[in-house]
Amino acid sequence: MCEQAAEQNGQQTSWLEEIKWNQDGLIPAIAQDHKTGKVLMVAWMNAEALQLTVTEQRAIYWSRSRQKLWRKGEESGHVQQLHDLRLDCDSDVILMQVEQLGGIACHTGREHCFYKSLKNGEWVAAEPVLKDPNVIYDK
Amino acid sequence: MCEQAAEQNGQQTSWLEEIKWNQDGLIPAIAQDHKTGKVLMVAWMNAEALQLTVTEQRAIYWSRSRQKLWRKGEESGHVQQLHDLRLDCDSDVILMQVEQLGGIACHTGREHCFYKSLKNGEWVAAEPVLKDPNVIYDK
Repeated sequence: MCEQAAEQNGQQTSWLEEIKWNQDGLIPAIAQDHKTGKVLMVAWMNAEALQLTVTEQRAIYWSRSRQKLWRKGEESGHVQQLHDLRLDCDSDVILMQVEQLGGIACHTGREHCFYKSLKNGEWVAAEPVLKDPNVIYDK
Repeated sequence: MCEQAAEQNGQQTSWLEEIKWNQDGLIPAIAQDHKTGKVLMVAWMNAEALQLTVTEQRAIYWSRSRQKLWRKGEESGHVQQLHDLRLDCDSDVILMQVEQLGGIACHTGREHCFYKSLKNGEWVAAEPVLKDPNVIYDK
């Protein structure tokens, strides 16, 4: 790679280099509904996922369990279109404002993932399943 | 400890045992303003911090850098009073609805921590400092 190309590459990726990745090269990313403000979910991104999220203007995560890129909505159709991207003061958490296509962010078929509420010392499901996951994922 | 006491103790802490703590025994916790929906900050909790958060109805984190409990607002007065506590589908992220006393969540003196916005390939501070941190922390 020539020096000029290296400089260009450095310029293009410098915003990624400012991020404090964890020991596994990942950063947690929060997806928030840009209209309702509801916190939909949290997942992980590596540098490639974050770069692609910005380039394609949709949430693309890194699946730790599958060890591969996870284009949110690739199976369910529940794509998260990006409206805004923020980084926190310590540069180790991402916050996205998104439009949640289909109105379902959670793999359980709920609007969002934070449906377990602590009531009298027990976690109880406080929100309804909007769509059967077997239908969502065509099992 | 007698069996009865052990059972009682088991009952009291079972909701903590359902949480998937990471390899360091921590879980990330999101604080969201219960009125505006603004995501204020993300920090870590261990089991003791989460138990105390519920008991005292205010956000209490675990400071990884200081390796001790961090009663949010203990120095700044910017206490986060708890209104609701949720757990996500994978039981590895906490979401709190809080009332942010003083209207400042970030140690930089801003309303919240997610003030860095990606503009033309650079992170820029998109929100004002409401109060000088030197004044907040009486340095």
